[in-house]
Amino acid sequence: MPIYNAPVEDMMFLFNKLRNNKKYNEIEKYKEVNSDLVKDILEEAAKISQNLILPLAKSGDENPPKLENGIVRTSPGYKEAYEKFIEDGWISLSCDPKYGGQGMPKTVSAFFDEMLSSACLSFKLYSELTIGAYNCILKHGSDEIKNKYLPKMVEGKWSGTMCLTEPVCGTDLGLLKSKAEEQSDGTYKISGQKIFITSGDHDLTENIIHLVLARATDSPKGTKGISLFLVPKFIVKEDGNLGTRNGVSTGSIEEKMGIKASATCVLNFDEAAGYMIGPKNKGLNSMFTMMNLERIVVGIQGLGISEIAYQNSLSYAKERKQGKANNAKSENGADNIIEHADIRRSLLNMKSIIEGERALCFWLSQQTEVSLNHSDEKVKQEASDFVSLLTPVVKSMFTDLGMEITSEAMQIHGGYGFTKDLGIEQLYRDNRITPIYEGTNSVQAADLVFRKLVTKNDDIIDKYLNLIKEEINISEDKIQPHIKQLNYYLDILTKFTTWIKEKIKDSKDDASAACNDYLKVLGLVATGHAWIKVLEASFKDYDNNKDFYEDKIQTANFYFNRVLPRAENHFKTAITGSKYIMDFKFN
Amino acid sequence: MPIYNAPVEDMMFLFNKLRNNKKYNEIEKYKEVNSDLVKDILEEAAKISQNLILPLAKSGDENPPKLENGIVRTSPGYKEAYEKFIEDGWISLSCDPKYGGQGMPKTVSAFFDEMLSSACLSFKLYSELTIGAYNCILKHGSDEIKNKYLPKMVEGKWSGTMCLTEPVCGTDLGLLKSKAEEQSDGTYKISGQKIFITSGDHDLTENIIHLVLARATDSPKGTKGISLFLVPKFIVKEDGNLGTRNGVSTGSIEEKMGIKASATCVLNFDEAAGYMIGPKNKGLNSMFTMMNLERIVVGIQGLGISEIAYQNSLSYAKERKQGKANNAKSENGADNIIEHADIRRSLLNMKSIIEGERALCFWLSQQTEVSLNHSDEKVKQEASDFVSLLTPVVKSMFTDLGMEITSEAMQIHGGYGFTKDLGIEQLYRDNRITPIYEGTNSVQAADLVFRKLVTKNDDIIDKYLNLIKEEINISEDKIQPHIKQLNYYLDILTKFTTWIKEKIKDSKDDASAACNDYLKVLGLVATGHAWIKVLEASFKDYDNNKDFYEDKIQTANFYFNRVLPRAENHFKTAITGSKYIMDFKFN
Repeated sequence: MPIYNAPVEDMMFLFNKLRNNKKYNEIEKYKEVNSDLVKDILEEAAKISQNLILPLAKSGDENPPKLENGIVRTSPGYKEAYEKFIEDGWISLSCDPKYGGQGMPKTVSAFFDEMLSSACLSFKLYSELTIGAYNCILKHGSDEIKNKYLPKMVEGKWSGTMCLTEPVCGTDLGLLKSKAEEQSDGTYKISGQKIFITSGDHDLTENIIHLVLARATDSPKGTKGISLFLVPKFIVKEDGNLGTRNGVSTGSIEEKMGIKASATCVLNFDEAAGYMIGPKNKGLNSMFTMMNLERIVVGIQGLGISEIAYQNSLSYAKERKQGKANNAKSENGADNIIEHADIRRSLLNMKSIIEGERALCFWLSQQTEVSLNHSDEKVKQEASDFVSLLTPVVKSMFTDLGMEITSEAMQIHGGYGFTKDLGIEQLYRDNRITPIYEGTNSVQAADLVFRKLVTKNDDIIDKYLNLIKEEINISEDKIQPHIKQLNYYLDILTKFTTWIKEKIKDSKDDASAACNDYLKVLGLVATGHAWIKVLEASFKDYDNNKDFYEDKIQTANFYFNRVLPRAENHFKTAITGSKYIMDFKFN
Repeated sequence: MPIYNAPVEDMMFLFNKLRNNKKYNEIEKYKEVNSDLVKDILEEAAKISQNLILPLAKSGDENPPKLENGIVRTSPGYKEAYEKFIEDGWISLSCDPKYGGQGMPKTVSAFFDEMLSSACLSFKLYSELTIGAYNCILKHGSDEIKNKYLPKMVEGKWSGTMCLTEPVCGTDLGLLKSKAEEQSDGTYKISGQKIFITSGDHDLTENIIHLVLARATDSPKGTKGISLFLVPKFIVKEDGNLGTRNGVSTGSIEEKMGIKASATCVLNFDEAAGYMIGPKNKGLNSMFTMMNLERIVVGIQGLGISEIAYQNSLSYAKERKQGKANNAKSENGADNIIEHADIRRSLLNMKSIIEGERALCFWLSQQTEVSLNHSDEKVKQEASDFVSLLTPVVKSMFTDLGMEITSEAMQIHGGYGFTKDLGIEQLYRDNRITPIYEGTNSVQAADLVFRKLVTKNDDIIDKYLNLIKEEINISEDKIQPHIKQLNYYLDILTKFTTWIKEKIKDSKDDASAACNDYLKVLGLVATGHAWIKVLEASFKDYDNNKDFYEDKIQTANFYFNRVLPRAENHFKTAITGSKYIMDFKFN
């Protein structure tokens, strides 16, 4: 079993030293969320992640859920762990106190998301989609629906799903065939097949609240005719008690490469009772509330799995003796592999990416809170735009780099990384879903380039580039070399942005062929920006915790020397255009 | 099950149009290996790969070998397939006719290695190590040993293994503990434990010939005291018949992420009878005969798996409808995803890497033959040096890019790439061993930089760079733009080489921290060189097969525009040195 120690110290550093954001500070409801409270929460969260959740990873991988006589039985130990998990109130962490939640901001809950992802992604997914469904219902549901469903979901007694994909459509929801027939009482009967439904069915909760995209029989074709429906597994009676089984059944559980303990289901809806959420034919918009927050969490999954992969690599590198280092320390035999320059390079690559991502994510969590809770609509909108811009970046970059990092972890472990014993290969397999689900990383890149850079009201990317420029205008001498480095790549990003804005107008294929590269450049620069802020805090507070800050400063140095420079090649190759790609005849 | 059509046309193009190498042509023994004969062989090889071997991949993955009462039973169907395989003589393809082989050059057998790797790597491994052991015995064994063991191995009735790794040592064989006690009759008794032994035990063959590294009781510590021993599973009697079981038993079969049908064993040697191969205490040298050829084959495994991943991606992209292309073709609904610029980019990335690698590998196969069979010792040595130089490059680059390509294949397949149905995720898992075994890719990079660039007799890399310069001095106008591109990166490689040669002398850690980057730059330039030769042949023969050559020319164009430029970032970041890496305190 891999080791895992939740990085509470780094999280508290971010919370204490990078929280001071004017607009975030203006949010009334989080004034009382102070450092002591957060530290207590994170320490408890660390305990439950390390002690309760971590051991579930291996057992679930070896014993995936089974579909027996129409019932999905989760892996051994999952039910007991889930009961403890909800008993301690963990589902409710970020939920509205009105429905029984603890009302913590995303700046805190994102840390918990990371810890759970490190410990066991499969287990996490059972509660993650509940939060997703909660967020969607909270924003788009009627008061009646909210009062009826949310308290039980916040408590964790009922869970949630997102039912989008069908055999003919994943990315392209305009093609979906599930239909909704309106009944005389205003409810709908939903019929159709949904596939790849995470936590689609299981025995952990008394009820499952499906949020289903379907087309009302009188709605138009394409994406403009899709509505969103709440479809419970068991009908909820007026008094809140559970009634009869609804017309939803589980066709099968997918056999997958990773996250095997997560029940990914084929769900068949057969005239199931459904209740419309949000306006008719605006289902995609409503679902995107859920999707966007969820996409950030998928990015955090990549970060969490990277963290545990790093910790195990570091630990192994300190123990495994193999080969003499260039400056051999051992007289006889071999040195610990951490003495080898190449292993150190690999470890620092992981560490500099992980800590940069965590800092970037913290900033994004703050922006998310501003976008949801600031009193000024204009401020809210601006934050919302930044969140929209960075969502595909965080989703894609963190998950792609998660593959890089789990792969490096395997290499450091050698043959022991490929066998089942140490659990490293499971991290690699489990993380491999993250670049795929919630929209493949290429879909994210297209979303970024074609929808997020510029909206009809605003030039978001321009604002964001200016924000970086302002925020890295720092006088501290010691940071100047890195600011200079970042400016070099910021300049490349700016040129790339100008190029891509032109192409979006008159040569869309050029933009499409470049979108993955563009996303990477934006992500690398955004992470560089985050590192500059970490450096600023580190130098400011240096004397109070020299070892910690020296570690940060050196890790940042690696990022600027060896990671950020990847940006240039993406730019240079992308601007070769797409004519030769589009002209190619694939015979 | 994935589809697979062996790329015989591309292979025959290489054989017909890129074979004309002066020194290769001087090898007497292959004069009769003509185009018609090779085409016949490859077509038969394609059939057996597609029809007999391909279906074994999925069944073996689902039913790995089992250890029952000390006997390793291979996956269902493997025994029958293996019998057919050896009946048709496929093991003997490249072996010496003196021992029953067909005497085909590596230029031909490497194509077959690729096909088998595409079809089912696990199955391939059962015969691959036999060839490895055959090569080692052929070079270092006494006539008595050769006559006793080789004919049965060439026939495929007996198989072979390489027993190097022990729990305390993979890379660093100096640490090995297995011991060999000399007996009065000159034989040895071998005791110790070997792990990660590919095809270490199984029921496909009557006998298994283990080549085991062990330390004679009177030999010194470290690498200078290691000898090589032949240790048969069953003692072979004077008359060639099998006698009693030798003291080798199977401790367990490893559970692995991929190549599950390959029995990776823990072998316990308990006073097993062993016969020394090659000179005492020179076991590592003898084993490296086997290792080096084997490493090239591991590179070819990465190429083969890349090819099948590409074929399936292309086929899926032509059928899967999702989203409208920028220049939408469909009036209603969605376009085939091959219409999307980003998918096309991804497919061309795969294709341009695969075809470039295949051409590079063909050149390397020729060099290998020259190194083994040329009549002039000087010519032999030069070819041998080139092979030594390129071996770690091919092993590492092809396998790393194999991960990139199988990963892209998963992304193109979306959720269907992560589930078991289509077999794409298995390609990804199976290929993942290739950057690890036969020395991790980092070990290859260190080997390249510290041992292969310059030997005590020669500046190999300098010779190789000159060879490229000479060979790309081509007058054909249409190739000039690509020659210019290659020259730009050749210049970078030259600078990088100068830098790294200096660092090897006075700052080894800088070289260690840079060695992976250096390997990649060398590999990218070497593949660019191969593409120039493909272009030269394509323009020369253009009118005879326009469609085929147009495809080549456009694919090359992609390589030079989008793949080769990766080299620059490797150089720029690597020369930032290692001080900040070595100084880092990993607390």
